[in-house]
Amino acid sequence: MDSYAFCVEPFTEDVNGLLALTVLGNQLLRVADYSASKHQFGFLNVKEKHHVWVLSRLIMEMNRRPKTYEKYHIGTWVNRVYRQFTDRLFQVNDSEGKPMGYAHSVWSLIDFETRMPVNLESDETKAIHDAVSDENVPIAPSGRIRLSDDAKETNRIIAYSDLDINGHVNSICYMRMAIDQVFTDYPALVHPKSHFVQRIEVQYMRESYFDDKTLRIKTEQRDKDTFLVEIIRNLPDGTGVESVVKAAVTLLPFEG
Amino acid sequence: MDSYAFCVEPFTEDVNGLLALTVLGNQLLRVADYSASKHQFGFLNVKEKHHVWVLSRLIMEMNRRPKTYEKYHIGTWVNRVYRQFTDRLFQVNDSEGKPMGYAHSVWSLIDFETRMPVNLESDETKAIHDAVSDENVPIAPSGRIRLSDDAKETNRIIAYSDLDINGHVNSICYMRMAIDQVFTDYPALVHPKSHFVQRIEVQYMRESYFDDKTLRIKTEQRDKDTFLVEIIRNLPDGTGVESVVKAAVTLLPFEG
Repeated sequence: MDSYAFCVEPFTEDVNGLLALTVLGNQLLRVADYSASKHQFGFLNVKEKHHVWVLSRLIMEMNRRPKTYEKYHIGTWVNRVYRQFTDRLFQVNDSEGKPMGYAHSVWSLIDFETRMPVNLESDETKAIHDAVSDENVPIAPSGRIRLSDDAKETNRIIAYSDLDINGHVNSICYMRMAIDQVFTDYPALVHPKSHFVQRIEVQYMRESYFDDKTLRIKTEQRDKDTFLVEIIRNLPDGTGVESVVKAAVTLLPFEG
Repeated sequence: MDSYAFCVEPFTEDVNGLLALTVLGNQLLRVADYSASKHQFGFLNVKEKHHVWVLSRLIMEMNRRPKTYEKYHIGTWVNRVYRQFTDRLFQVNDSEGKPMGYAHSVWSLIDFETRMPVNLESDETKAIHDAVSDENVPIAPSGRIRLSDDAKETNRIIAYSDLDINGHVNSICYMRMAIDQVFTDYPALVHPKSHFVQRIEVQYMRESYFDDKTLRIKTEQRDKDTFLVEIIRNLPDGTGVESVVKAAVTLLPFEG
């Protein structure tokens, strides 16, 4: 396991005074690259072969999040390599080494000219296999996310600040959109000050772009604590729509 | 001058591959607190007296912003203390010590029970006076921001992720809203991939809250490169509106 030290900086907290989940999500992606780079398959390493890592799935489950100026560690390791996918796991520990939560991510490696996935079971990707550790994380795997025709639906303009270095809406921004929309759509059930995101699962299926102009965000309550979200893109030629991201957000009462 | 070292982390870049201005804005607020704490008047120091620092104005002018993994330094110092205000300046230097840009902030110290500003010219605030340095920054001071009745206007839902630890829409979020709205409202003039924010000036006048539900964002082009923004809150009792934030955003062609 590669482990990286962090401290909750002022102005990175959510409304409950805890490290914002989107900031933590960003740090997971960052340590994923630190760790991959250490083992010679980071963004800069694969870029030489015209490849790029693409996030396919991210599950975060945090029973506690650190407070302002609290120190914590993010440990990360590759757990599995199969066909065109690799699983990277994360453990977030407090300063005494006690787990606060876990995350599970799935990545594929894409050729940025052909957009085709690279077979990760080849000799070329030996460095990834060498980094595999069997250790698992005690969180539920990703589930099926399917919204009904009764889901609520909102148009969301794609903003300048949603975009990443590749001109796509960035991965963590979709997570932010999903959480925000649930709080907006279910004010009688959840409120930012009385609830916190205990688990979020995001399935990344396609990309969207500034010139798409708007996304459609659907939400639906699945059970008492869990809400489903689907983010949909209008195809530029007006011929239809496609699902870009699906998410499941679990909100629990915040005890302070 | 107190100076702090940074490095552009992956996933903190904007669409042009440069450190996102909102990330830099957040870092300015962070080093302001590091520096103030070093001189015994940081957030935790003033909290003991039931006081809190409130940002009143922020001007950032960046002719260049660093790229992924590029190292840079943020220097900061108090430049002036007058009545209930203090000016804190910033200089952002590249790894060779060459200035990339500057920022100017104005703060007041508020009693968080009475909401009244503290007189900063008293003995109680000696630590701030002791930290003053006369050095200035070569950027234009803040100007008058007044939009006409012809300004464009959009409703913006206040989202969960907009909120800070105090339950207010956070300072940098207003900056993000202002920049985003200009790109959305003037697609024929500016585009995220062909323009960059060279200067932004934000005037913070009042607070807004999640339970305000929506803000109204007005925009208007002032001259070829500069756009004015006003963010307005509906008063909760339905009796009217109040201006929360005003901003001026200067966008220049991005040369790469």
